[in-house]
Amino acid sequence: MEIVLACDLGGTNLRMAAVDEQGNIHHRLKVETPKTERAGEIVRVTVEAADKCAAQVANIGTVKALAAAVPAILNVEKGLILKAPNVPALDGCRFAAVLSNELNLPCVLENDANAAVIGEHAFGAAKNFRSVVAVTLGTGVGGGIIIDNKILRGADGTAGEIGHICVEPFGVPCGCGSRGCVEQYSSASAIVRLAQELENQYPKSVLRSRAHLTSADIYEAGKTGDDLALEVFRQMGFYLGIALAGLINVLNPEVVVIGGGASAGWDLFIPHTREQIRQRAYREPAERAELVKAKLGDDAGILGAAQLAFESVEKAEIKR
Amino acid sequence: MEIVLACDLGGTNLRMAAVDEQGNIHHRLKVETPKTERAGEIVRVTVEAADKCAAQVANIGTVKALAAAVPAILNVEKGLILKAPNVPALDGCRFAAVLSNELNLPCVLENDANAAVIGEHAFGAAKNFRSVVAVTLGTGVGGGIIIDNKILRGADGTAGEIGHICVEPFGVPCGCGSRGCVEQYSSASAIVRLAQELENQYPKSVLRSRAHLTSADIYEAGKTGDDLALEVFRQMGFYLGIALAGLINVLNPEVVVIGGGASAGWDLFIPHTREQIRQRAYREPAERAELVKAKLGDDAGILGAAQLAFESVEKAEIKR
Repeated sequence: MEIVLACDLGGTNLRMAAVDEQGNIHHRLKVETPKTERAGEIVRVTVEAADKCAAQVANIGTVKALAAAVPAILNVEKGLILKAPNVPALDGCRFAAVLSNELNLPCVLENDANAAVIGEHAFGAAKNFRSVVAVTLGTGVGGGIIIDNKILRGADGTAGEIGHICVEPFGVPCGCGSRGCVEQYSSASAIVRLAQELENQYPKSVLRSRAHLTSADIYEAGKTGDDLALEVFRQMGFYLGIALAGLINVLNPEVVVIGGGASAGWDLFIPHTREQIRQRAYREPAERAELVKAKLGDDAGILGAAQLAFESVEKAEIKR
Repeated sequence: MEIVLACDLGGTNLRMAAVDEQGNIHHRLKVETPKTERAGEIVRVTVEAADKCAAQVANIGTVKALAAAVPAILNVEKGLILKAPNVPALDGCRFAAVLSNELNLPCVLENDANAAVIGEHAFGAAKNFRSVVAVTLGTGVGGGIIIDNKILRGADGTAGEIGHICVEPFGVPCGCGSRGCVEQYSSASAIVRLAQELENQYPKSVLRSRAHLTSADIYEAGKTGDDLALEVFRQMGFYLGIALAGLINVLNPEVVVIGGGASAGWDLFIPHTREQIRQRAYREPAERAELVKAKLGDDAGILGAAQLAFESVEKAEIKR
């Protein structure tokens, strides 16, 4: 059986998996991402993880390539990391070439948000769709776009920043320097902020004055009909709908995949999101765009990397 | 010399031109678009215009194909007009096949907004750029997107509706059914509306109580420092910047081409547009995206059609 190694290199953890062409994960492991200023240290830990993973599947198949999803702006063709705010040791590192050299395997890189979309497209909720908008509602709001079965990278590899579409021109300041970004209304963090801001208007809410509130708490309260929680998810879904309506008008995609922690609140926000899309997007593209929940969870990045690794093997074989 | 016929079929006028591969127009004519419920009548007028135009260039070259830019949602592959709100007689018409049959020439269709972008990309302001966002500030706000030198059509051919990106969630109602679309703030019509709404706050403005105000009048007043006119263009540029910042974050294009009647006010609005892009988009894509004025004016659609006609000839020759 042909196997690839797929790595999801995060600011906190590095995950490595051995994956087959159908997207089955045969072995996986997780280690801490070293806090270091030296790229070599991260390379060493990655290579160790790759070797361990490869050893575990040596009896079932041949490892053909490795791909890594990295939280960075990249030059994908060159396998070069331009800027990795959460793993700054890798800034300027030709990570693909270095890994390839150490592991004696073809290696490719992809931005982590793009890898997650590619994963959902290859093995998850966006399978069999040609054009995809994917949005991840986590601490922030991430995203990625597939057009004609191809990831949209843009001129500098920065395309897909859906989270910083403006939905309130004079709205909440955002870490990106703008204000009123959809990230400030529809992320998991935004859900908590909205609940805190609105709680005085909902004296009966079970969420009032709760310390350490999480978006999951708010969702649980919403399921029992808590009026504050319902209002929070209404606003969250409203603004998400505004951003998606714009994307639907501009891109006319076949499917919109919504994932990330806050997507757990689906039942509470999606009716408001759909309503805004219905009101704001043209009818034809609005009816075309299916809204679906992401399927792969935390494995989307790993499986996207696996898909890219298999594609790199194919390309290398065609060249030969 | 190889020549193609390029048609720009509008709700009011039908324009036909004979164009060479360098985008030179050798002959052109304009007739009224018949107000009719019969597709055959429009076909007849189009064929007549094509024949006249072809006769005028018979001495300089061979006519190889015709392409028509039409104000419609299309199935481009089938040459089928799905919905043409301004030329409803053509709804459901296989316009390309009918023209091809009458003229004995290969014929292709394209949506008019897309044709204009293709024109600017082939012969105008977006020449030599691979990824383009084009926005036309006319009565409404139109647009089109080129990615990797290819027009973005989307799943149903409706992609590129930049004018209906929301920039004010509770803003001015729009003809599309939404509210706060950028079309309501940055089109030529919006400029006039803004001036009328704001005039009471600017008692010294020369524009006060002027009947039949046009966006050109407001631009002329702005050039002389009229405070109302300057405020109108500030708001117009501000909201255009919000919409473009979102597109720059999502698409990371190499160039943004701005055309249409209201783009005449460039000097007055573009500083505000640039400022919003600087504040709201990520630095790398914001610095990458050049903002340029469209070059081809009313000929963008004709020249885009010409480019498509030449491409269809090439494709046919490759097949043979």
